[in-house]
Amino acid sequence: MRANLTRRALLETAAQLFDERGYAGTSISDISALSGRTSGAIYFHYASKEKLALAVVEEHFASWPRMIERHRSTGRPALEKLVALSFTVARAFRDDVVVRAGSRLWMERKAIAAPLPTPFVDWIEVVTELLAEARANGELAAGVDPVPAAHSVVCAFFGLHTVSDALDGREHIEQHLHNLWRLLLTALQVHPDPAALLDRVHAARTSPSTTERPSADQAVLTRAEA
Amino acid sequence: MRANLTRRALLETAAQLFDERGYAGTSISDISALSGRTSGAIYFHYASKEKLALAVVEEHFASWPRMIERHRSTGRPALEKLVALSFTVARAFRDDVVVRAGSRLWMERKAIAAPLPTPFVDWIEVVTELLAEARANGELAAGVDPVPAAHSVVCAFFGLHTVSDALDGREHIEQHLHNLWRLLLTALQVHPDPAALLDRVHAARTSPSTTERPSADQAVLTRAEA
Repeated sequence: MRANLTRRALLETAAQLFDERGYAGTSISDISALSGRTSGAIYFHYASKEKLALAVVEEHFASWPRMIERHRSTGRPALEKLVALSFTVARAFRDDVVVRAGSRLWMERKAIAAPLPTPFVDWIEVVTELLAEARANGELAAGVDPVPAAHSVVCAFFGLHTVSDALDGREHIEQHLHNLWRLLLTALQVHPDPAALLDRVHAARTSPSTTERPSADQAVLTRAEA
Repeated sequence: MRANLTRRALLETAAQLFDERGYAGTSISDISALSGRTSGAIYFHYASKEKLALAVVEEHFASWPRMIERHRSTGRPALEKLVALSFTVARAFRDDVVVRAGSRLWMERKAIAAPLPTPFVDWIEVVTELLAEARANGELAAGVDPVPAAHSVVCAFFGLHTVSDALDGREHIEQHLHNLWRLLLTALQVHPDPAALLDRVHAARTSPSTTERPSADQAVLTRAEA
């Protein structure tokens, strides 16, 4: 148990440094200095810097399934699930250091001597399923084919992260995501009314019965416990 | 003149290596080996690896103004100019090694000890102007505000490049871009008919009077001359 907490604390310290300085700019001794543990202790838990980077990227990928499941199980219209999920993911990219570090390490993947999982594929599948559900429920506009539309939605969403990261450190990501959905929903909805759908999604988030506990909070909690 | 050709040849050899191996994976001796010039000759033209990387990124950025101007001056409807421009840029990302290398180096910018220009800002401005022109010509749907819409379009476009690069080395980028425009134009056009607009753009490209000379061809030509 104690070993697991140490492992997790090391992972988060490493994530913080990878996020700020990148893979090449972070050394095991930096992680040692910031975490207050010896290099030996770090190598005991993670055999190499590559393995540690891989663990951060895998932890980043592991964030999504539970988040996706929580949104899919709400019983709301499929397009609302999709939009609500996208806002939860955007906040994780902005607030969760492991997600941010995993994303940066993936960008720098060609410099890391460990095969990293391929992103996007699973996201395209999840979005395709939600759009197919929207089609089955009569929510989707007639001309929209779920497969290419899901590809486009995933591209637009990840482009938003790259651009937001470059221009303002993702500070205004929620506003930009809102604007992106105004455009995309106009094309996706059978009876376009993006503003009303976005209002419902924002309202559901702030109502007490569906309050989400962002993973960033959990990360802080884990750190405090360790 | 001869010195300029040497400079250009070195830039393209460096671009090829940066594109394949990234910044950290490319050394001046790799560039020397591939170009057949001594390290001394390389340092004579570019004072350091950082300066060479910066020159590649600046050359990448320099590709756009002439390309943008050519599309803006066609006298076609503004949304057609925008779509046609996006296909020209997508082909440059797929085919032009300096553009591809500049894009990869920019992704790895945090590892490079030289300030690189910020992308996206100029693109958002160009797209905003084209959407404003579309508004003035009565091409744009009533609810679309050119500024946030331009931001969304640029995000979607650059996301497409990231995803295409990760999944298939940009092989199917034109098909994916076509699908993205089918979605976006449905939201942007005052009388949505994306298929017809895309047909007109593809037809104009293949007609002899407007044949484009892609910058990739020019790069090959320069290489052959040097």
